[in-house]
Amino acid sequence: MIIQLESGASQQAIAEVEAVLSDIGYKKNEISTQFAKYWVCIGKNEFDIRRIGSLAAVSDVHRVSDSFKLVSSKWKVGPSCVDLGDGVKIGGGHFQTMMGPCSIESDAQIEETIAFLKNNNIKIMRGGVYKPRSSPYSFRGLGQDGLKIWSEIAKEAGVKIVTEVMQVSQIEAMADYVDIFQVGARNSQNFNLLDALGQVDTAVLLKRGMSGTLDELLSSAEYIFSHGNEKVMLCERGIRTYETAYRNTFDINAIPILKEKSHLPVVSDPSHGVGIRKYVSSVTLSSIMAGADAAIVEIHSCPQKAFSDGQQTLDFNQAEKLISDIDKVRKLYSEL
Amino acid sequence: MIIQLESGASQQAIAEVEAVLSDIGYKKNEISTQFAKYWVCIGKNEFDIRRIGSLAAVSDVHRVSDSFKLVSSKWKVGPSCVDLGDGVKIGGGHFQTMMGPCSIESDAQIEETIAFLKNNNIKIMRGGVYKPRSSPYSFRGLGQDGLKIWSEIAKEAGVKIVTEVMQVSQIEAMADYVDIFQVGARNSQNFNLLDALGQVDTAVLLKRGMSGTLDELLSSAEYIFSHGNEKVMLCERGIRTYETAYRNTFDINAIPILKEKSHLPVVSDPSHGVGIRKYVSSVTLSSIMAGADAAIVEIHSCPQKAFSDGQQTLDFNQAEKLISDIDKVRKLYSEL
Amino acid sequence: MIIQLESGASQQAIAEVEAVLSDIGYKKNEISTQFAKYWVCIGKNEFDIRRIGSLAAVSDVHRVSDSFKLVSSKWKVGPSCVDLGDGVKIGGGHFQTMMGPCSIESDAQIEETIAFLKNNNIKIMRGGVYKPRSSPYSFRGLGQDGLKIWSEIAKEAGVKIVTEVMQVSQIEAMADYVDIFQVGARNSQNFNLLDALGQVDTAVLLKRGMSGTLDELLSSAEYIFSHGNEKVMLCERGIRTYETAYRNTFDINAIPILKEKSHLPVVSDPSHGVGIRKYVSSVTLSSIMAGADAAIVEIHSCPQKAFSDGQQTLDFNQAEKLISDIDKVRKLYSEL
Amino acid sequence: MIIQLESGASQQAIAEVEAVLSDIGYKKNEISTQFAKYWVCIGKNEFDIRRIGSLAAVSDVHRVSDSFKLVSSKWKVGPSCVDLGDGVKIGGGHFQTMMGPCSIESDAQIEETIAFLKNNNIKIMRGGVYKPRSSPYSFRGLGQDGLKIWSEIAKEAGVKIVTEVMQVSQIEAMADYVDIFQVGARNSQNFNLLDALGQVDTAVLLKRGMSGTLDELLSSAEYIFSHGNEKVMLCERGIRTYETAYRNTFDINAIPILKEKSHLPVVSDPSHGVGIRKYVSSVTLSSIMAGADAAIVEIHSCPQKAFSDGQQTLDFNQAEKLISDIDKVRKLYSEL
Repeated sequence: MIIQLESGASQQAIAEVEAVLSDIGYKKNEISTQFAKYWVCIGKNEFDIRRIGSLAAVSDVHRVSDSFKLVSSKWKVGPSCVDLGDGVKIGGGHFQTMMGPCSIESDAQIEETIAFLKNNNIKIMRGGVYKPRSSPYSFRGLGQDGLKIWSEIAKEAGVKIVTEVMQVSQIEAMADYVDIFQVGARNSQNFNLLDALGQVDTAVLLKRGMSGTLDELLSSAEYIFSHGNEKVMLCERGIRTYETAYRNTFDINAIPILKEKSHLPVVSDPSHGVGIRKYVSSVTLSSIMAGADAAIVEIHSCPQKAFSDGQQTLDFNQAEKLISDIDKVRKLYSEL
Repeated sequence: MIIQLESGASQQAIAEVEAVLSDIGYKKNEISTQFAKYWVCIGKNEFDIRRIGSLAAVSDVHRVSDSFKLVSSKWKVGPSCVDLGDGVKIGGGHFQTMMGPCSIESDAQIEETIAFLKNNNIKIMRGGVYKPRSSPYSFRGLGQDGLKIWSEIAKEAGVKIVTEVMQVSQIEAMADYVDIFQVGARNSQNFNLLDALGQVDTAVLLKRGMSGTLDELLSSAEYIFSHGNEKVMLCERGIRTYETAYRNTFDINAIPILKEKSHLPVVSDPSHGVGIRKYVSSVTLSSIMAGADAAIVEIHSCPQKAFSDGQQTLDFNQAEKLISDIDKVRKLYSEL
Repeated sequence: MIIQLESGASQQAIAEVEAVLSDIGYKKNEISTQFAKYWVCIGKNEFDIRRIGSLAAVSDVHRVSDSFKLVSSKWKVGPSCVDLGDGVKIGGGHFQTMMGPCSIESDAQIEETIAFLKNNNIKIMRGGVYKPRSSPYSFRGLGQDGLKIWSEIAKEAGVKIVTEVMQVSQIEAMADYVDIFQVGARNSQNFNLLDALGQVDTAVLLKRGMSGTLDELLSSAEYIFSHGNEKVMLCERGIRTYETAYRNTFDINAIPILKEKSHLPVVSDPSHGVGIRKYVSSVTLSSIMAGADAAIVEIHSCPQKAFSDGQQTLDFNQAEKLISDIDKVRKLYSEL
Repeated sequence: MIIQLESGASQQAIAEVEAVLSDIGYKKNEISTQFAKYWVCIGKNEFDIRRIGSLAAVSDVHRVSDSFKLVSSKWKVGPSCVDLGDGVKIGGGHFQTMMGPCSIESDAQIEETIAFLKNNNIKIMRGGVYKPRSSPYSFRGLGQDGLKIWSEIAKEAGVKIVTEVMQVSQIEAMADYVDIFQVGARNSQNFNLLDALGQVDTAVLLKRGMSGTLDELLSSAEYIFSHGNEKVMLCERGIRTYETAYRNTFDINAIPILKEKSHLPVVSDPSHGVGIRKYVSSVTLSSIMAGADAAIVEIHSCPQKAFSDGQQTLDFNQAEKLISDIDKVRKLYSEL
């Protein structure tokens, strides 16, 4: 059971709720987010929920039988919208395309990418400054310095930034420059990182683990939310299967299922979800038809010269065609 | 290398081709289908393909490096169209929706289903008369008798039939009553069944194995084609993964990849591909946006009373809405 | 619930059992094997099993809640032993190693293999005469002629034969020459083939499907058993996973679990289970330590020249060392 | 190519090596561990390795084509041994069993476990004080306080401790109390954690990711080694597959393959590898027969009362029998 408290509830009114919880034998976890105060209450006894709902301090109350709680659509029926400011919103009927390179490489690269995005009315730029690499001998990104430069250029252009954070100690320094923190597939169950991201007010794009279940993804989102940050987006990026004809198996089923189980926005990552350039557009469009609230797509002015992962990266011509198609598909989707 | 022979080529002209093959050290497999005669030639030596192409008996010749040959788009670049007669075509720009119950149960059920299909302009009815069941104690279908009755009603209504064939010995008796033989996931590498289906002129809907790779699916299609039957359709029906939130993982990547690797039509089976009623429509529409040439969907006037698998079956209201949406999505797809 | 009938039960005594079944609302499936007559009874009502157990025609009765019935250890608690004659037994404390090439290639190959087996006291030879190939253009085995020659040589040497049967129509001709019919992974759910193998008295080695679950394997075994053939062995041969460092993932867990769930003997196939020569012996020995009742191992006098799959094939020196190690491990296993 | 430098090499002698590297166009990564100084050199040009090997500052040099380098058996052919002091060694012919509860719960639990271990000559105790939980509302361990008490009791008894570390910030405080840091499956590619563990002198037990490949596991080990810590052990703990009859699929193939690809010790974790109590012993023994250098097994005086995961936990009687069997199997293994 989740209880949302009235924002101005008196100490006495709150004590009344505590008394009822104690009476029915429920233990509460107190959660304060940037938007509200919740009690996630865990217990086993039967009781009449109207005993809670009728109390003065209680703004809302629902039973939630899922293992995840605050992110469940059993708690909040309507879709949530993550608002990045300046009119850039994701979820609840708002759709965004995020585009950019795998890695931030140079000022010139940032500038030509931003110019492309501006020309095509794309409002969020992706790019990595800290790169998870399976080999310790590989390039690991430009780091905080790269981020600062990127942020400066992007802010001037009015473009938002989404980039991966890899550890707790990076959060504070990055927070001033980032609009969306991305949690990568390998960190999808790095619970300490999730806890810490719950304590900032920046939006979080949480990727599904390489072989993460949908329930695990939702539980990871619960970590962030329950530590105080409601601005969470779920990202399907393909799962690991036996098939070797492509890089990952994009789980199209995940899109409608996540949207049904949770109120959080769902983002599709077709670049990693299929991993081969010529199929990325097809998978993007089908994910939108399945209900995705956003798509994050790798692009590069010259994929052959990209620092990494060029195989799944669209060039600007392909990206331009895709942006135009996305608009049409999204329009049809919202009319069905 | 594949050689297509001129249909009226003289013995002498053919002997000339054989002489060149012998000279370059290639071994030929002679394939006669309902449409043409091919030689699939296997060898390793380098040679100038114009030595073959310039011969009088040769209608067409291409190198095909894939493990599958005649079904490869390296052999035939444009898409193939399977023509079921009466204007019902699949592939090459033609789209069909196939609908019907999991199992054929009774005359009444057949009739109400056909009536629904006719009202909604659906031209192909699916249904099982031989059912693969993991338990030997389960209902295994109405068999040949059920098929005859069904066929009679469907023919009168001008509706085509697609149904599963499970073994070689059923083919002959079924062939007169069936428009499309379906090969189920469990028989996807039953090579003797595939050989035998190569020897009939009826179209074949070949399902991917439960954990079949795309290359295996194409090689299985090659079995049918190389035994003489060009009317083959590839069907994506979901694969087996670790995820338990649904029945199978619909592999959306497979749709554009199969269409790129092969000229054969690609059919999506979202009912098995997700296996939960409320997500079937989303997956269907996204598969069409990914480029499927047909969709096969389980419907029943009362899914709760269906003999089996009712969990993934749409009722007629859901089916009607889906048909309408399919039309819009297919229209947009063909305009992009 | 399963009832085993007394072999000489009178019509009247049997009618009494039927009357009780009818009274408690259970439907019976009558099964006659080479050894006994069973009724597999399916129903939902509660009843006192002593009402059945006390009847004169009833030799034994047990409730079996598994989806598979006659192969369940809930029906038969002790392990079954498959007796091939001449003292060659598998299961119930008897262990056998089966060895031989992937494909039967020639008389000379048969003879040198048999000589090796005789020298090393191995009593069962494996080899393929019908080969499942994913490409229709590959060598598909020497067929029935090869089998006849092989059988002649093997019989003279007192060596038993295990070989794959691929379709129903092959069974009759093969039955005279084969001691164990092998069902390959691709046919693990070819229910018509399983049905037909239930109607012969020859032992069957049933391989798990490429991505078959243990329950599916047991249900497939139930098909054979319930059609009349109790001589069934279950074979773990590796499953399909995301890992590409080897060919299949040998599922060591499957060995103790199958032995606990079923009374049937369990055979390990490490050659396909790992698929790389240098690891086959390790996997073989560990499977024996896990409780396998037999191991089936690919060997060839010259693996580099084998018709196929030489990568997973041991040469005779490796095989000799393995046989010696198997003896020691099996001895230790039986003492623990 | 990896170069190990002579420990007392002069500046000038080192400069000679640098000059050759520069000449052949190789870039070096300098690695200092607790045992030696290495240069991991990356480049593409052909050259005569004797040009390097003959230099005064060079203690050893090998080409290593694997993506992982210092952990490869191409670098170090013989097996490494991790020495925990007091005669407790793992690898290079030394075998250890690690046993203990999932979670450290209380002083009493620690004491009865240690008493059991001492009686059975087990020298390493496992247990969690920081627990990764998919739900933020679950018990997350006794933390640093629990560790201190545990360490005190264990030290007095002469028992070593292995426990999971979940984040960089915990390392310093834990290092004084821990003999082996365990990296859990969810952190197997948490590269920042791996980096940091490279900077301590404590041994590390690195678990394979839930769907980690063997190459990824070795690359993660390379992170630790290349940041300065050679005391790394690889742990197979089962992978995620489609099978639901048990918790994870223990990958028995991984044991001989890891031992062939790397010189690092390999530990088997059968408790998580199968996840069901009654099969844990079988899987343990088979992993030892496959060549594991250690096994880590969950035990509890009363598994039903364990804080978590009791389903896979052996009671003391089962553990005692297993310890006795392990001795016999290990003895046989070392004699084969």
